[in-house]
Amino acid sequence: MTPLQQPLFNRLALIGFGLIGGSIARAARAQGAVRSIIATARSPQTRKRVAELGIVDQVVETNAAAVEGADLVIACVPVGACGAVAKEIGPHLSKGAIVSDVGSVKGSVLRDMAPHLPAGVHFVPAHPVAGTEDSGPDAGFAELFVNRWCILTPPPDADKAAVEKLKTFWSHLGANVECMPAAHHDLVLGITSHLPHLIAYTIVGTADELSSVTRSEVLKFSAGGFRDFTRIAASDPTMWRDVFLANKDAVLEMLGRFNEDLAALTRAMRSGDGQTLFDHFARTRAIRRGIVEIGQDSPAPDFGRRQPTLPAEPLPRPYAADNE
Amino acid sequence: MTPLQQPLFNRLALIGFGLIGGSIARAARAQGAVRSIIATARSPQTRKRVAELGIVDQVVETNAAAVEGADLVIACVPVGACGAVAKEIGPHLSKGAIVSDVGSVKGSVLRDMAPHLPAGVHFVPAHPVAGTEDSGPDAGFAELFVNRWCILTPPPDADKAAVEKLKTFWSHLGANVECMPAAHHDLVLGITSHLPHLIAYTIVGTADELSSVTRSEVLKFSAGGFRDFTRIAASDPTMWRDVFLANKDAVLEMLGRFNEDLAALTRAMRSGDGQTLFDHFARTRAIRRGIVEIGQDSPAPDFGRRQPTLPAEPLPRPYAADNE
Repeated sequence: MTPLQQPLFNRLALIGFGLIGGSIARAARAQGAVRSIIATARSPQTRKRVAELGIVDQVVETNAAAVEGADLVIACVPVGACGAVAKEIGPHLSKGAIVSDVGSVKGSVLRDMAPHLPAGVHFVPAHPVAGTEDSGPDAGFAELFVNRWCILTPPPDADKAAVEKLKTFWSHLGANVECMPAAHHDLVLGITSHLPHLIAYTIVGTADELSSVTRSEVLKFSAGGFRDFTRIAASDPTMWRDVFLANKDAVLEMLGRFNEDLAALTRAMRSGDGQTLFDHFARTRAIRRGIVEIGQDSPAPDFGRRQPTLPAEPLPRPYAADNE
Repeated sequence: MTPLQQPLFNRLALIGFGLIGGSIARAARAQGAVRSIIATARSPQTRKRVAELGIVDQVVETNAAAVEGADLVIACVPVGACGAVAKEIGPHLSKGAIVSDVGSVKGSVLRDMAPHLPAGVHFVPAHPVAGTEDSGPDAGFAELFVNRWCILTPPPDADKAAVEKLKTFWSHLGANVECMPAAHHDLVLGITSHLPHLIAYTIVGTADELSSVTRSEVLKFSAGGFRDFTRIAASDPTMWRDVFLANKDAVLEMLGRFNEDLAALTRAMRSGDGQTLFDHFARTRAIRRGIVEIGQDSPAPDFGRRQPTLPAEPLPRPYAADNE
């Protein structure tokens, strides 16, 4: 991609400054994608911290103030708060502004925000499929979206130029961009993100409540697989509460399929049907290869986790005497 | 720990040379923990590769030949193969030899191996709780066990000196060592390792069979959480088939608890009970912190996965003109 000679937007308003809002600010600034950034957040502590970080041009107290004069507005709040944000900013939006969000559910965002946005404003919901288990204004980083996908779910009557402009913005933050209907997005993310989170939250809770195994044992022996689930189950509780409430139908549909498949594997285990287990496990291995091949995960074993080193003073090595 | 002046064992026999056997060989050699290593493996290709790697002193064709004259024998094979290995090596073991294994289930290994081992041989089952999704003779590395736990499950009448000696061996490979009864081990690993694997294998299979979401979409948008599960579901199929067959009772027990908890969260989601979801998600976050605090996972977000960098040529940065 040829770098632009001009910023894409004059003034970016970020409403909410957690992991995603903070990463957008850092990336947009690093890439010169916008001329200035104005940010707000609900809590005074967050606003204070954002001002201290010095990565935006202005921090204001209200959502209404944030969007005045902005030509790109991105709500970076939990999906359950999107409707209220739209209601607050609606009367203050500039004509021709693009309004977007970063929510993990798109049907509910479209439903909750659209009615509050005035004519002449272009609403293009978006979802950058990227994140870490950290949250808060310090958690973001400019590279978060590089080689990740950002899904846009413009309504059927969306302004084509506005969609293209938002696509270009996300491309300059390093993301691959794809458009799809909101309902399909919610199904896709139901299986690739929401159900995995529900399962991880469940199993980590289960482990913590056992009386036969102590919490200390769960922690110590977590390298057998459990620790991977704890990372996902450490994600922001407010964000995820909202996701499950907003995408209930798709998650319940995926959960139904999951439960059927779990029952089938359980039956194979109970009846000693090793062949069914083996065939299933061999098949899932191929999916991992596919993800690594398209660059959506590291090819390094164990996610490339850093390995500690062996103790500094090894024992003597007597091999040569015996064998050479 | 003060390094020993002498190797702990004269001759280590490794039966099987996958990720764990290969890592023991590399670590024992690097630490000078044994004077010589003899290895065998079932397939001619693996034996050929082990010989090429040059990290053991001798490669032989049969299990019987491998254990002749060895004072430490470690079966590094799937748990379902341990009984047959014990039967083959029993008549060829040296008096006073320590026989161990690395299986992820300990009750079945004790049951399957013990009857075939002659008097005068010390049987001390072991399970290093460490691994990656890779397998085969090239997958191992010397640092695999550093700061991981190795659980020994000696039978009640085990020789104390033999247990101590095996403890020392694993300590020199970098592991923390703990003893517990086999039945308790199987419960602990049921929740910290076996159930997580069963769940991961299930959900990856579920995602792959959906007709509403394509495989290409599953792969592309996997960074939303799913990709973490695919790493675990890429583990060795033979090893895991055997684990589920051998630890069926404990896994079914843990699965029952998990299903109850999943039903409770599903009910909260279906009924719109956000408070229950939030409270649960806030609680599980604390478990992650505990695991990071005791050094069983990286404190870096996203397991410290390498982040790609932003495109080389950023857009112009006009901030100064506006704000300084």
